[in-house]
Amino acid sequence: MKLSHSFIKTLRDAPKDESARSAQFLIRAGYVHKELAGVYDYLPLGLRTLNNIENIIREELNKIGCEEVRMSALQNPALWEKTGRWSDQEVDIWFKTELSAGGELGLAPTHEEPMTDMLKTYIKSYKDLPLYVYQFQTKFRNELRAKSGIMRTREFLMKDLYSFSADEESHNEFYHKVEDAYKRIYERVGLGDCTYQTFASGGIFSKFSHEFQTVIPVGEDTIYYNKDKSVVLNEEVKLPEVMEELGVKEGDLESARAAEVGNIFTLKYKYSDPLDLKFNDKEGKEQTVFMGCYGIGVSRVMGVIAEKYADDKGLVWPVEVAPYYMYVVPIGEEGTKVATELESKFPESILLDDRDARPGEKFGDAELMGIPFRVVISDKTLAEGKVEQLDRQTGEQKLLTLDDLTAILSGYEKDR
Amino acid sequence: MKLSHSFIKTLRDAPKDESARSAQFLIRAGYVHKELAGVYDYLPLGLRTLNNIENIIREELNKIGCEEVRMSALQNPALWEKTGRWSDQEVDIWFKTELSAGGELGLAPTHEEPMTDMLKTYIKSYKDLPLYVYQFQTKFRNELRAKSGIMRTREFLMKDLYSFSADEESHNEFYHKVEDAYKRIYERVGLGDCTYQTFASGGIFSKFSHEFQTVIPVGEDTIYYNKDKSVVLNEEVKLPEVMEELGVKEGDLESARAAEVGNIFTLKYKYSDPLDLKFNDKEGKEQTVFMGCYGIGVSRVMGVIAEKYADDKGLVWPVEVAPYYMYVVPIGEEGTKVATELESKFPESILLDDRDARPGEKFGDAELMGIPFRVVISDKTLAEGKVEQLDRQTGEQKLLTLDDLTAILSGYEKDR
Repeated sequence: MKLSHSFIKTLRDAPKDESARSAQFLIRAGYVHKELAGVYDYLPLGLRTLNNIENIIREELNKIGCEEVRMSALQNPALWEKTGRWSDQEVDIWFKTELSAGGELGLAPTHEEPMTDMLKTYIKSYKDLPLYVYQFQTKFRNELRAKSGIMRTREFLMKDLYSFSADEESHNEFYHKVEDAYKRIYERVGLGDCTYQTFASGGIFSKFSHEFQTVIPVGEDTIYYNKDKSVVLNEEVKLPEVMEELGVKEGDLESARAAEVGNIFTLKYKYSDPLDLKFNDKEGKEQTVFMGCYGIGVSRVMGVIAEKYADDKGLVWPVEVAPYYMYVVPIGEEGTKVATELESKFPESILLDDRDARPGEKFGDAELMGIPFRVVISDKTLAEGKVEQLDRQTGEQKLLTLDDLTAILSGYEKDR
Repeated sequence: MKLSHSFIKTLRDAPKDESARSAQFLIRAGYVHKELAGVYDYLPLGLRTLNNIENIIREELNKIGCEEVRMSALQNPALWEKTGRWSDQEVDIWFKTELSAGGELGLAPTHEEPMTDMLKTYIKSYKDLPLYVYQFQTKFRNELRAKSGIMRTREFLMKDLYSFSADEESHNEFYHKVEDAYKRIYERVGLGDCTYQTFASGGIFSKFSHEFQTVIPVGEDTIYYNKDKSVVLNEEVKLPEVMEELGVKEGDLESARAAEVGNIFTLKYKYSDPLDLKFNDKEGKEQTVFMGCYGIGVSRVMGVIAEKYADDKGLVWPVEVAPYYMYVVPIGEEGTKVATELESKFPESILLDDRDARPGEKFGDAELMGIPFRVVISDKTLAEGKVEQLDRQTGEQKLLTLDDLTAILSGYEKDR
């Protein structure tokens, strides 16, 4: 991509009401644009980053046999009344609207009800189970307060997966597969070393649910963990009886601020019972489907990655989520020629700063945008057959031959 | 994809209130699920089809230098009040909702206002122009009546592109590029031979806009055309003075029912003026940005393709939009082994019907789902080193060697 062909520019200032550092950088670097408190647009660099995270999640879920769909945002109250969740007392984040033809509609904050209802058409027998269905879909939540940039918003991209099993044993088997898939996802997006699976409050049908919490200073939650971090608890379950059950003592626990980046939940019959999702077992007896649900806020994860890696100069993206792999700055006539040829060969990997601006300005923008590698292609180093590469995260500087550079870019594109 | 691993099943019946034939087939074949009148979910086959159409549009727009973003559905009334379009008298299809923190919000039926406003941050000088920005985004329209299946809905996927130019000349240049890109898009999705660029009503700033209309019997519009179809008119502009201007006579015009599948519109200063989108020209003088907008309803196009190609047995998809390329039915032990190996090699191209069902039932489902080629891999033909291929559209039957089949599948995957 040639920067001169893009509308993206870095900005000197972020909106005054934007307190989260990640959001300030995301706005200043041209990744997102704020429409309203808690409502953001994704600009070219931001959309590419979001898509990279989405694709990592998709790959890991497809590997464990999940099927992708896309359900509607508009919701029929009749369905939600069956579970009691149309009520604003029960679910206090509904956006509701009126159909001009008459009648109320809602904007889905989550999709248990329509997903369960839709599958009544497709699940009849034990032979139809298990099923794992997910979507990437825009959720709407009427939050009273929206802060923390894209980490907590009123409209956001979520991956929600629902599992439908014949019994608890089959459910548990899949639940563990999702745990593993989630670990691979956090690993790949660069949050592996600071994300923990925590015990969280369960609800009516299960003692616990699990959350995935990433330790970052601006996290909204507090988590507690023992020395080797083999047991990690959300605050709401740090109770004497729970600690006893998990074999940890109050005094041994340390705490940290963390942001939730995913949750997995054994629903059992919570939705399948009121929505009447049944199947005939091998003996022809009618049984209720055993359900689970598994969420990841995709835009939220992007915000958490931004928070975790940003330094005082700007964003820093891990390679797998970065919108581009290299930020190429040409200097001089031959440098420009070589850089332009390289970009035309690897337009999906290279952000070429071909604007009419000083190198210093370009270097600043490269830092703010957080592209993993900055490569300067100048007449000076080309004279020795070399180009200069700077690692955004470590600051490590290297001279590479053009052949090395081409090989690195080819390898990067092949892996994607 | 192995059909036994999917939740998709064909259905004997469509909902009684579903009158459009395409919608009946799309539901019965497991492509979509109806939530409400005018609100549909996309199931695995439907989502793949939708994604294929989206990707064709994306490729053609990227070729002419457009940049992709994704804007929010939630809208700030303040922005729309500036153009007068917050008023329900002016725009009668708003879904409006209340923010729990106080204040009204809308769900975007289109994005001229936020797009124009967002670009105020990025357009300062003539050097920043032209810019072409598009998105694939879910639009909400509070239609009084929703019929015609996925061709006219209350929530739908739309590609909306906006152009920002320094003057009319530069605008016109791009406008023609979009015309050409649209023609390539309709060609690729299989609507090339029955889609016409029509003169449509312009609005305040332009005499005409252009629509792209596909001739199909269930179309909601009537178009008029002269003998060689060099002039095609929407009904609303079939006026004496227009016909005279375009050099056609009432008596020479024939009519046809058609469905609108795209529109392109010279906006001039309609939005940039009230929203104050200016730039400094070469002389440092402030000028207003010259705009255009260009829409394609992606889910609508999918419905129109379904309508155009369906026959009495079910859907028929053109190769480039079909969710899978081949529907493979194995018969016998060796047939199953060969088919399974082939599917594992080409899982994105083959829908393998490995269900425990009679071949006749599988053939019926293959027809209903409209996958371009049905391939029967049976012990009988394998004994002669052959497999049997049936073209869904032409009914042409062929014997292929396994090498031919592999070469065809490799070629198909390479082209995608």
